[in-house]
Amino acid sequence: VLFFPDSHIPCRKYLLSPIGCTKNDCRLSHNEKSSFIKLMRYILNAQKSLKLCMFSITCDELAQAVTTKYRQGVVVKVVTDTEYMNLNGSKMHGFLKQGIEIRHDRSSYLMHHKFVVIDEKIVVTGSFNWTHAAVVGNTENVLVTNNPEIVRPYLNEFTNLWEKIPNVSYSFCYYTYKVH
Amino acid sequence: VLFFPDSHIPCRKYLLSPIGCTKNDCRLSHNEKSSFIKLMRYILNAQKSLKLCMFSITCDELAQAVTTKYRQGVVVKVVTDTEYMNLNGSKMHGFLKQGIEIRHDRSSYLMHHKFVVIDEKIVVTGSFNWTHAAVVGNTENVLVTNNPEIVRPYLNEFTNLWEKIPNVSYSFCYYTYKVH
Repeated sequence: VLFFPDSHIPCRKYLLSPIGCTKNDCRLSHNEKSSFIKLMRYILNAQKSLKLCMFSITCDELAQAVTTKYRQGVVVKVVTDTEYMNLNGSKMHGFLKQGIEIRHDRSSYLMHHKFVVIDEKIVVTGSFNWTHAAVVGNTENVLVTNNPEIVRPYLNEFTNLWEKIPNVSYSFCYYTYKVH
Repeated sequence: VLFFPDSHIPCRKYLLSPIGCTKNDCRLSHNEKSSFIKLMRYILNAQKSLKLCMFSITCDELAQAVTTKYRQGVVVKVVTDTEYMNLNGSKMHGFLKQGIEIRHDRSSYLMHHKFVVIDEKIVVTGSFNWTHAAVVGNTENVLVTNNPEIVRPYLNEFTNLWEKIPNVSYSFCYYTYKVH
């Protein structure tokens, strides 16, 4: 179980640059024991698939981790909320541009899940939306488990939502008209 | 793991009235397999303590289940979010009137947890705030476990937050001035 907020802002270069962070006096966090860096490691260690069911994604680092894995050949599928995918700062536009397939609920209610199934073996779930406020501001929890009795129902829920939402067009998403 | 939304609105009398629901043709749900009724059973079966760490509580049935247990002698402690406890429909006012002790974060960030530790043995956690929209509208998940490796960190988190928040007064809560 990971708890937030972290006390320090994580160093993006340390996490995501191919050569790491080269600053001797970097003041951002390189702490592998921090909740955020542990969370990033789970995403960055994905080998086969990332099945994301996430209400809101605005965090640069997590979005970049997802697109990095996608470019490396990991299958990425995203289910998200219609209203929130259109808010300022949402990373869904970037995901669409990269070619990542996104499906969003067609309901006035919220697609409020905040989980990801990694390689069909690990589930990461909790109160934590993938936003900056959730990393160093909010009080949040994230449970990580590879217990098949827990992973299976989350994987089924992802598949059910994915198949229930028709992949006809992104007509609910105003970005659709800007992409291509 | 419980998933929402439920397809039918639950019957409050069935769940909470001492004599149950006496309607022969009740059209509300009495389905013990529904996620909401399962969730209510966990709360109503509490024997010793309910340690709630909940961003938002507006659901009548869940609030009534908590006050019922409190009146039966179960220790109830609530940690919540300052802004959300003052919103319309929040049950915190009612909890305070009953004598339930509430502590709320003093931060501009969110106390975004949605978990409850029951009898220090079971943790109920997920994306699910205790609201009506979460029951029959939103897409939500709730994980219930008695695995001590999971329960322990949630219990510690509750204790840490509880002790970190000074119990000086409810000066952040405008209801304070109406309560005695």
